[in-house]
Amino acid sequence: MTVGPVIRTQVGIVGAGPAGLMLSHLLARVGIDSVAVDLRSRREIEETHRAGILEQGSVELLVESGVSDRVLRDGHEHAGIDLAFGGGSHRIDFHGLTGAATQLYPQTDVFIDLADARKRDGGDVRFGVRDVEVVDFTSDSPGMRFTDADGRAQEVRCDYLVGADGSRSACRYAVPETARRQYFREYPFAWFGILAEAPPSAPELIYNHSERGFALISQRTETLQRMYFQCDPDTDVADWSDDRIWEELQSRLGANGYTLHEGPITSKTVLPFRSFVQEPMRHGRMLLAGDAAHTVPPTGAKGLNLALADVRVLAEELERAITKSDPQTLDDYTVRALSRVWRAQHFSYWMTTMLHRLPDATDFDVRRQVGELETISSSAAGSTFLAEGYTGWPNS
Amino acid sequence: MTVGPVIRTQVGIVGAGPAGLMLSHLLARVGIDSVAVDLRSRREIEETHRAGILEQGSVELLVESGVSDRVLRDGHEHAGIDLAFGGGSHRIDFHGLTGAATQLYPQTDVFIDLADARKRDGGDVRFGVRDVEVVDFTSDSPGMRFTDADGRAQEVRCDYLVGADGSRSACRYAVPETARRQYFREYPFAWFGILAEAPPSAPELIYNHSERGFALISQRTETLQRMYFQCDPDTDVADWSDDRIWEELQSRLGANGYTLHEGPITSKTVLPFRSFVQEPMRHGRMLLAGDAAHTVPPTGAKGLNLALADVRVLAEELERAITKSDPQTLDDYTVRALSRVWRAQHFSYWMTTMLHRLPDATDFDVRRQVGELETISSSAAGSTFLAEGYTGWPNS
Repeated sequence: MTVGPVIRTQVGIVGAGPAGLMLSHLLARVGIDSVAVDLRSRREIEETHRAGILEQGSVELLVESGVSDRVLRDGHEHAGIDLAFGGGSHRIDFHGLTGAATQLYPQTDVFIDLADARKRDGGDVRFGVRDVEVVDFTSDSPGMRFTDADGRAQEVRCDYLVGADGSRSACRYAVPETARRQYFREYPFAWFGILAEAPPSAPELIYNHSERGFALISQRTETLQRMYFQCDPDTDVADWSDDRIWEELQSRLGANGYTLHEGPITSKTVLPFRSFVQEPMRHGRMLLAGDAAHTVPPTGAKGLNLALADVRVLAEELERAITKSDPQTLDDYTVRALSRVWRAQHFSYWMTTMLHRLPDATDFDVRRQVGELETISSSAAGSTFLAEGYTGWPNS
Repeated sequence: MTVGPVIRTQVGIVGAGPAGLMLSHLLARVGIDSVAVDLRSRREIEETHRAGILEQGSVELLVESGVSDRVLRDGHEHAGIDLAFGGGSHRIDFHGLTGAATQLYPQTDVFIDLADARKRDGGDVRFGVRDVEVVDFTSDSPGMRFTDADGRAQEVRCDYLVGADGSRSACRYAVPETARRQYFREYPFAWFGILAEAPPSAPELIYNHSERGFALISQRTETLQRMYFQCDPDTDVADWSDDRIWEELQSRLGANGYTLHEGPITSKTVLPFRSFVQEPMRHGRMLLAGDAAHTVPPTGAKGLNLALADVRVLAEELERAITKSDPQTLDDYTVRALSRVWRAQHFSYWMTTMLHRLPDATDFDVRRQVGELETISSSAAGSTFLAEGYTGWPNS
């Protein structure tokens, strides 16, 4: 195997999803070089359907950093959501309550915009690499080694390393056990997610509570819709015909007065639920960001937004550390980022437990949930509190 | 055994605690006669320490119905609470946020005021009776039979019967199983409650979250304090010396920067936790009110307030039914009362689960709770939402 010359850069980034690319992009804008690598091909990332709701602050980050042409043109502003429960529906008017809104714009499109921007600006991003390894991250000269898409062994040496390598992060596990603390929570259910070729059933997202369990109705385009319903974690999609899926969705939504537009289902997947945090987010000269450091359950759409919030702070802190030649200042990254992480963990847990049917739930719990949903939706303060969390708290 | 003549009244009330007496008092003010009976002696009720926080609406009910001399003179306005967590303390300013406040005034004093008012107004209230039985409540002439304090068998016939006989209600169980639905939730912990002869440690209540579990610091007088800490449900008070209790309380409060004033402990009790609702709250011509229909865990002090809210609505609905000679209108009582009941159930559950350490809690849950408490206390909307629940929602 041939080994290329050692590549020098200021920041080595493991992971070139939205978090890694946004970091690389933000650093480039303040004159900091980086190299980002990813095990997946660009196409693989583009074709993996993920979340589609951007907080106000995430949109602002795209706008401020100059990658907003498409999100402003093709995104759909969602100024509220419908909370459906107890036989009816109640709109939470984000914009009226907080002045903020969310944008429906798929994560895959955020990725494409950032990948295009990095390409346009001459950024060094390498997809489809293998055998990535992070080394010497407690020394002054950390590095990453990998085999590139052409089969050549490569080594990058840098001032700082960033693990933005997602929920199966290798960087996270490179931190010695004695130097990290991991926080977990499993949930006894999952989401059954579909893509359906049908017109939208509603202009905004519907978060639907029912005795049969939770369902979420969201949109992609005028002809393609994304919907989810709570299911058992070991559900086999093969057991679910289109007819059975529509029957289940119509039953859950029908309980609150909705009728869904049906159509051919082109994708069926089961999404697991878990909460995870690793602390600290800095170890020596390696920093973790996004899913590598924390995972949230999908209810409330915090995953991508939290990753973007991480790298916004991380770009600032890396600039400071590099300008001052002082890696110690990076401890501030952990403090600033974790404050938002634990709020988002709670928000995601709250939205999840308020809306889902737990397997051991008694009738008491179902009625209590309706009591909570009524209190929230009938109180300006309660609705505003939910809207603040959903559209995103101020930056720290 | 001698049997007295049948006593005629418009409303027969089983239970002469605060709920039964307030109902009897409110009915008398609109010219409706009642007879209230209780298994306990007046002294027994006076000496059972219970909650001490009145919602704004509960105080208004006392004021509007003319039993407010003492509450306005001897009560202490509490315009907020301290939420203590994560090493510090954060005041929730009820009055600044909602314009409302609570009043520290023990339930035993509410009882004394109402018992005195009923006595002053010539109300028929019989304490210390035995063998109470409700009969014929699906007929036009329901009744209650009992043995009075002098050992005489008595029978009351009335237009309507009210079961305000507390959490061990016999009236609740007189409803046939097929005609009632019961909702339960048990909690895997309890409160260890003490009365201590010491000066107050804080001007308002402290709701204290800690890794060792919840603690609540409240006040009675300048020289007597009420405090609680989360414990195992099968805790034996005999195992807890004064020293051990103070050590536990100081440790939990010390985590958030408080030091408590200590003194001799004059009472030690373990309070169980449970949530319960029976629906409907009307069966024929019998209506349930207060703890007879629902129990909440003590966190958030909703029990007495909910009972008073019930009887406020019930007095209105009974007046309407009697004026119109139409018992069917009493179905509105269930609808109006239950709306508040389920909100209060959720509020009590929420305050409980936000602040207590669950036995199976992981470190994730403790950190998530701190994330929630931070989000609530740093958001005007979140703090207002909590303040609205604590000071009491508008009347329905």
